Amino acid sequence: MNKILRVNARTGETRWQTCSEDEQKWGGRSFIAHHFLKEVDPLCDPLGRNNRLIIAAGLLGDISVTTAGRVSVGGKSPLTGGIKESNVGGAVGKNMARLGLKTVVLEEAPDSPKPRVLLIRKDHAELIDEPELQGKATSETLKILRKRFGDQNGLLCVGPAGEMGLSGACVATTDHTGVQLRVAGRGGLGAVMGVKGVKAVVFDAEGAESRSPADRAALTAASRELNKILRDDPKTDNRHNFGTPAVLSLCNALGILPTRNFRFGQFEQAESISGEMIAELIDKRGGEGRKGLPCVQGCIIACSNVFADPSGRTTVASLQYENIGLLGSNCGIGDVDAVAELNHLCNQVGVDTIETGAAIGVAMEAGIIAFGDVEGAKDLLRQVGKGTPLGRIIGSGVVTTGRVLGVRRVPAVKGQAMPAYDPRSLKGIGVTYAMSPMGADHTAGNALETARSHDPLSREGQVEISLRLQIRGAILDSLGVCLFIRPAFVKDPSLAARLLNASYGWKWTYQDVRNMGLECLEVEREFNRRAGVADDQCDLPEFMRTEPLPPHDSIFDIPKEDMDRIWAAQLPEDVF
Amino acid sequence: MNKILRVNARTGETRWQTCSEDEQKWGGRSFIAHHFLKEVDPLCDPLGRNNRLIIAAGLLGDISVTTAGRVSVGGKSPLTGGIKESNVGGAVGKNMARLGLKTVVLEEAPDSPKPRVLLIRKDHAELIDEPELQGKATSETLKILRKRFGDQNGLLCVGPAGEMGLSGACVATTDHTGVQLRVAGRGGLGAVMGVKGVKAVVFDAEGAESRSPADRAALTAASRELNKILRDDPKTDNRHNFGTPAVLSLCNALGILPTRNFRFGQFEQAESISGEMIAELIDKRGGEGRKGLPCVQGCIIACSNVFADPSGRTTVASLQYENIGLLGSNCGIGDVDAVAELNHLCNQVGVDTIETGAAIGVAMEAGIIAFGDVEGAKDLLRQVGKGTPLGRIIGSGVVTTGRVLGVRRVPAVKGQAMPAYDPRSLKGIGVTYAMSPMGADHTAGNALETARSHDPLSREGQVEISLRLQIRGAILDSLGVCLFIRPAFVKDPSLAARLLNASYGWKWTYQDVRNMGLECLEVEREFNRRAGVADDQCDLPEFMRTEPLPPHDSIFDIPKEDMDRIWAAQLPEDVF
Repeated sequence: MNKILRVNARTGETRWQTCSEDEQKWGGRSFIAHHFLKEVDPLCDPLGRNNRLIIAAGLLGDISVTTAGRVSVGGKSPLTGGIKESNVGGAVGKNMARLGLKTVVLEEAPDSPKPRVLLIRKDHAELIDEPELQGKATSETLKILRKRFGDQNGLLCVGPAGEMGLSGACVATTDHTGVQLRVAGRGGLGAVMGVKGVKAVVFDAEGAESRSPADRAALTAASRELNKILRDDPKTDNRHNFGTPAVLSLCNALGILPTRNFRFGQFEQAESISGEMIAELIDKRGGEGRKGLPCVQGCIIACSNVFADPSGRTTVASLQYENIGLLGSNCGIGDVDAVAELNHLCNQVGVDTIETGAAIGVAMEAGIIAFGDVEGAKDLLRQVGKGTPLGRIIGSGVVTTGRVLGVRRVPAVKGQAMPAYDPRSLKGIGVTYAMSPMGADHTAGNALETARSHDPLSREGQVEISLRLQIRGAILDSLGVCLFIRPAFVKDPSLAARLLNASYGWKWTYQDVRNMGLECLEVEREFNRRAGVADDQCDLPEFMRTEPLPPHDSIFDIPKEDMDRIWAAQLPEDVF
Repeated sequence: MNKILRVNARTGETRWQTCSEDEQKWGGRSFIAHHFLKEVDPLCDPLGRNNRLIIAAGLLGDISVTTAGRVSVGGKSPLTGGIKESNVGGAVGKNMARLGLKTVVLEEAPDSPKPRVLLIRKDHAELIDEPELQGKATSETLKILRKRFGDQNGLLCVGPAGEMGLSGACVATTDHTGVQLRVAGRGGLGAVMGVKGVKAVVFDAEGAESRSPADRAALTAASRELNKILRDDPKTDNRHNFGTPAVLSLCNALGILPTRNFRFGQFEQAESISGEMIAELIDKRGGEGRKGLPCVQGCIIACSNVFADPSGRTTVASLQYENIGLLGSNCGIGDVDAVAELNHLCNQVGVDTIETGAAIGVAMEAGIIAFGDVEGAKDLLRQVGKGTPLGRIIGSGVVTTGRVLGVRRVPAVKGQAMPAYDPRSLKGIGVTYAMSPMGADHTAGNALETARSHDPLSREGQVEISLRLQIRGAILDSLGVCLFIRPAFVKDPSLAARLLNASYGWKWTYQDVRNMGLECLEVEREFNRRAGVADDQCDLPEFMRTEPLPPHDSIFDIPKEDMDRIWAAQLPEDVF
């Protein structure tokens, strides 16, 4: 993968470039960071002509390694005002790999965006007007694209929310079978794509072939070791059977499950929306429901599911923890079928479930609808799709919803909604929310995994925990692998470097890999500083510093000054 | 005036303090700046518990000088995220002076704000629950307060928009006769007051007496000189007869009159909304219509008016240029009676006409209603008052309106709407919009007055012009006098110092006065830096740098780097 495709969304011009030696060393999130600091005005309007949308393969994107092939979508976020990377599985990565395509850079924007498809084939790219896709839901869009361009392609698209430029919009994709709907959800990057008049991108790798790795034998050895470690790890089995919803019961037990707009940390109906319940229902109901699907072809963890209704018909695929936390307990909704429907509606409209679940929670706090009102919540999501004033408010994310509806308890940092871990009782993630260049984002450094080994209610040590997790997050997001690969890297910290060396013929050490992650964070922070969203100017929402969270009656009490010292903290020996 | 009243809006506790030696030297805008940098967390939520609302008399507030007695309202702005000062005439200043009250500081906020009146009497202050004021329009509120507490008081209040915490909300007051409705409009400070559960403030000076000036003879001499210079200046007469609307024809001729959401610089119906037309109609219609009213008792310029409908009944008092520019030409509305009605509706609901006129212009661009649709615009304003979703969007200001409705041509800087001078053809004010700690605000440094002597289309010299105007603005806003006093200070730059010395017994020179203005700006900029809205991170909206403005087809082309050097520019000898 050494090709970069630049597309001018205003003129339609396309340019193929071969990446430079520097660019070769960046992938996914780190590519986005470096590209933005080098080429994009940090003060640009996120939804204006001068922002860019980047689709970047990870550094391990074109080799056969489990979980590899996730794709990073990036740009200046309309929510945070800073740099944003959001990654997603699906079939795009493998198709980019075969096309030798490291990155697609969408530049500029038309004055009046109309829906177009960016069709990328071997050595060819063009923007095609597709007026019939206007306002189409994501599933329908993907279905039309599969029919029109073939079902082996990698596809990305936005829903009506992205077309409207709503700041909560996501970028959707599907897996190689077309069954799942996956999204690069965070940061409102669907709006950035939408205002560029790009409704969808089709990656058609027909006739193209992946390059050979530099050292196939070494690659096979490293890949086998990785798979063995993962297979031997009990977490892999748990994830395969229960997926991400497995953590819901744990989060409820820890008292960090967002409930009724982050008013409580435990939900009285947690059991009915738990991973165990979901697995049980999938087994019991049969029909189209399934467990243990991979989101990226070849992944041996395969933690995704198809959740079906009582009649066995698919409601949503895949039903994940964050979506349940924000659309379920956070909205006071304990009916898992209702949560699945709300998840499906978010997907169809093309909005991030986390951002939108939080916005609905705030709308409930404002009294627009009551907590627990399933039909009301569905109606709000349909209004997002229709673009009514209220729908547009919700679709613009939780901060705008709070501002417009007059709610002060707004669970967000840097303009972006918090995922499903209340930081008052999991303080390490609070440090990440406040300090990460990504804003409130669990994938940027989730301290949940430390909750057993380190008291999550204690102030002590959380800054160091977050630092380690943030570096690791930057590495994984640059490699294009899933967080769940971590046990292998913990057991053998050299593994990531060995995989890179086998693929590229480099001579990297573990330290080089760690430095890549560190550098990525530094570059992102520098961009944010120039954009006016420096991390020392962000803190958790005020209510979390004063309002005790049941059941522990905890507040977030790590002083801002302590968090500000994070980047000067002692670097951990092993970041995995 | 050496008393400071602190009111805790959460507990109801009130505290009287005598101001320190330092505080004595601050007034109005400079008091707000210094207080905030010293005492308020720059990262606080503007509508949360940790923001404050300050009502500050100017340094010349308690002496009999023409135009003196304007009152500054200040806080961290929900629009800009930085420090904000907005000042207003009316009867508050004189009552504060008699009470010896330099400043009122509203601290903290209740969890669930209910309408209360802060009643301030001689050595007594209390917060009184007034449930019957809930949701009341400003005029009605002021009428009730006059009836209940006496008609000699100084009054401040918010309308329904302020109670709802909408970011476009203003703080309203009336003159000593109760005829005019004046507002401290900019920055959304009405929302800051509203969320503190303070619907109104009553300044009842009964039994109190102003202190004597340090040197009454010197004061009388300086005051007489000032009045003479003003009377001799032809601008005074023009202002008395035509008020601020006098400049509309000039702005149209210069091509800077915002028209149809800042798409054009001239309006084909400019004549029908001009100052000349307004004066003519007032004369012709008779009835309640009047010209030449003072907004502060004793002002000899007296540039306000009462605009009456064809039957002679008051529509609005006073009808001013900014309101006409934003609610009229900017919305494609050329019917001056319609503009007056829209102005009245803004006042009643309690929203800033500039912010809201700009927001309606953006809503028109979004296609919510058509340009020129008077009934549609009225309906939008009524919706603001009712708090419908669309009304709340509009009431939240132009940036939120643009974000939610998907419009990219948003005339705002630092989150705040531009007043009625398009900076593409009046480049000096563009520098002020971008660089002033106040965001886009003409009172922070309006280059219109330089348009005859310095080519407003030229890039050259505009940074220096803005610097001078900004320093002057900071001085006048700290003295509590009107911009229209300027001719006197130009003719005799020592006059401001002489007035201060006569009042306080100081030994200030012109340089001390200038330094006070400079220091005010520096303190504001430092607060903004800490708040994450540093002025080197703000620029004019992108469309103004690329979209030519008819009739001159000009763009805003002063490089950001040049503007960033403003604070290092050579200080002018005379800032007046």
